[in-house]
Amino acid sequence: MNSNRLEAFSDGVLAIIITIMVLELKIPHGTDIESLLPVLPVFLSYILSFIYVGIYWNNHHHMMHTVNTVSGGMLWANLHLLFWLSLIPFVTGWIGENHFAELPMAMYGGVLLMAAIAYFILQNRILATQAKDSLLAKAVGKDLKGKVSPIIYSVAILFAFYSPLVAGSLYILVALMWLIPDKRIEIILKSKE
Amino acid sequence: MNSNRLEAFSDGVLAIIITIMVLELKIPHGTDIESLLPVLPVFLSYILSFIYVGIYWNNHHHMMHTVNTVSGGMLWANLHLLFWLSLIPFVTGWIGENHFAELPMAMYGGVLLMAAIAYFILQNRILATQAKDSLLAKAVGKDLKGKVSPIIYSVAILFAFYSPLVAGSLYILVALMWLIPDKRIEIILKSKE
Amino acid sequence: MNSNRLEAFSDGVLAIIITIMVLELKIPHGTDIESLLPVLPVFLSYILSFIYVGIYWNNHHHMMHTVNTVSGGMLWANLHLLFWLSLIPFVTGWIGENHFAELPMAMYGGVLLMAAIAYFILQNRILATQAKDSLLAKAVGKDLKGKVSPIIYSVAILFAFYSPLVAGSLYILVALMWLIPDKRIEIILKSKE
Amino acid sequence: MNSNRLEAFSDGVLAIIITIMVLELKIPHGTDIESLLPVLPVFLSYILSFIYVGIYWNNHHHMMHTVNTVSGGMLWANLHLLFWLSLIPFVTGWIGENHFAELPMAMYGGVLLMAAIAYFILQNRILATQAKDSLLAKAVGKDLKGKVSPIIYSVAILFAFYSPLVAGSLYILVALMWLIPDKRIEIILKSKE
Repeated sequence: MNSNRLEAFSDGVLAIIITIMVLELKIPHGTDIESLLPVLPVFLSYILSFIYVGIYWNNHHHMMHTVNTVSGGMLWANLHLLFWLSLIPFVTGWIGENHFAELPMAMYGGVLLMAAIAYFILQNRILATQAKDSLLAKAVGKDLKGKVSPIIYSVAILFAFYSPLVAGSLYILVALMWLIPDKRIEIILKSKE
Repeated sequence: MNSNRLEAFSDGVLAIIITIMVLELKIPHGTDIESLLPVLPVFLSYILSFIYVGIYWNNHHHMMHTVNTVSGGMLWANLHLLFWLSLIPFVTGWIGENHFAELPMAMYGGVLLMAAIAYFILQNRILATQAKDSLLAKAVGKDLKGKVSPIIYSVAILFAFYSPLVAGSLYILVALMWLIPDKRIEIILKSKE
Repeated sequence: MNSNRLEAFSDGVLAIIITIMVLELKIPHGTDIESLLPVLPVFLSYILSFIYVGIYWNNHHHMMHTVNTVSGGMLWANLHLLFWLSLIPFVTGWIGENHFAELPMAMYGGVLLMAAIAYFILQNRILATQAKDSLLAKAVGKDLKGKVSPIIYSVAILFAFYSPLVAGSLYILVALMWLIPDKRIEIILKSKE
Repeated sequence: MNSNRLEAFSDGVLAIIITIMVLELKIPHGTDIESLLPVLPVFLSYILSFIYVGIYWNNHHHMMHTVNTVSGGMLWANLHLLFWLSLIPFVTGWIGENHFAELPMAMYGGVLLMAAIAYFILQNRILATQAKDSLLAKAVGKDLKGKVSPIIYSVAILFAFYSPLVAGSLYILVALMWLIPDKRIEIILKSKE
């Protein structure tokens, strides 16, 4: 069994997650610039979450490219990841509508943390089926980013209760850190040619 | 005609069903822990339904892998299954918003029962086009789970009017029972290699 | 250019149309059987529209199977069809929430009529690129159903203003008439083997 | 890595964007012709946006056909394009519900402008990986339409504050101008056969 349908289903869920978040951008009743103000924080949180879902799609895309056979365990590890990602629209809307208040910001980090752990589990499931010197194993390497991210999320969750601004900055930091992740696999792929 | 497009369409519908349920998680207006309380039962029902849709996707994925040619009857049996699955978000929201009240819990079981019957019909449609010793036929075997599940659902529906807790426990029991379904086909597949 | 992506995009839109209609099934606030009553007409209209979208998906699936190269004209004829189909959730909700009143019932027929015309245009676009004795040409034949349906829709629209019940019965009649459409192509396909 | 999954994901997002706009067509509570009046401007804006998304899907479809290997840069340029397109339902609903008022009409043009720029960036990313006389390079040519469109959008945005009607006419003009875009690649493809 190949990974095509797993990818297609994940694509579908991720595409819907991204687009459902737009529904939180409630259409203003007024037509002046002031009427757009309440939408602004929701829009900002939408941008951040859009980038996060984009990062997950991107990494998922690259990781699945190394998979030859899909096991039942992988299917469920993948569904587990999609479960946590499916909660992103909920926490995105919550932080946006409450101007990045303490608890919502902590919850946002909590969902990111669980998604990171779920991705880690899926990655390990896949690595377990591959040789120790497989393409993915090389690309992941010591997986510094994968290990640092949950730590930063955890710190951000704690900070959220004192300074949501610091928490938000940490979420942006992790996003920036991951914006160039696929380079790892791409470089190895190219060096093989 | 191969089963690719049938799978792609089913994937699309299942992906949307899963993600539409998230929309029932209404974003709380407050920002304290109490404001999350009303979301909790909806969240719990979301987890259960997510697992159920995941199980159906998983089994559907494995079953379709054994299909070579798709007949018109299969297309409609598949749409019939998707119809009942499409009602899951409705009953999920209903039990969540009403704290697992009697009638909603019975209706939830009713939709699960109809989906199980629809899956049974689809499976038979597919088996009818295959040899008696086909991969799917072997994997399904006496289909104990497929026959026991509707019985448990029926019992749970009756119990729902007296004790929704018992009904809910039975729904969880069936979900756990199915969480490892694909093993059947996987084992046979592996033994063939 | 092959028809794969055209089918994938159409599948996506049709899958979303089908699932969006479920959102019109507003979750009742009560938990007794009476609270389900207002949902009933919406549910009935959902069943009819689900079958109609299923018929379109089914026929589209079979027709596209005969297409080798996709022209720009086909892409737009296909989008034109999807446009009218995308209005089905709107009219479905309208007839359901207003207990099948006159104008909504006429509008429902209007959307079905436009979708039928759009399908007819797409079919002709495809036939124009094929030989006169192509598989699709044979399957379509004199296209009796394709020509009778718009006439019945037109009659139903006129009747809707006097008796919505007659209009609804005519919509159900056309649906039943189409429930076995793919037989035409399937029979020819089988006779070729 | 081929472009299949990139196309599948983009198809998913575009399919959802198109269908989400239908949700802005709020079902009227009345059943007479007057109750449809408030829906009319939303319906008109839906038609325009449907055509725009259709044009983007169409051009995207043709452009991606010339791509052999997908780079990380392309993935992000594509996500950037999808981001701006995902805002179309928001501005579509805003102009529709406010009868094409000044600021909403300017914002509508702003989103179209940003999407055009994002498409331009994606196109350049792809051209950079191809030979100077590649199929896409020939088809794009001097890319007159691609350069004129942002200028017309900018003019329309300015006009929106004085005459939304002129702005709207310009948006329709650009749509008409693009309705036959793929001809460019199709003609070259045919001349090669």
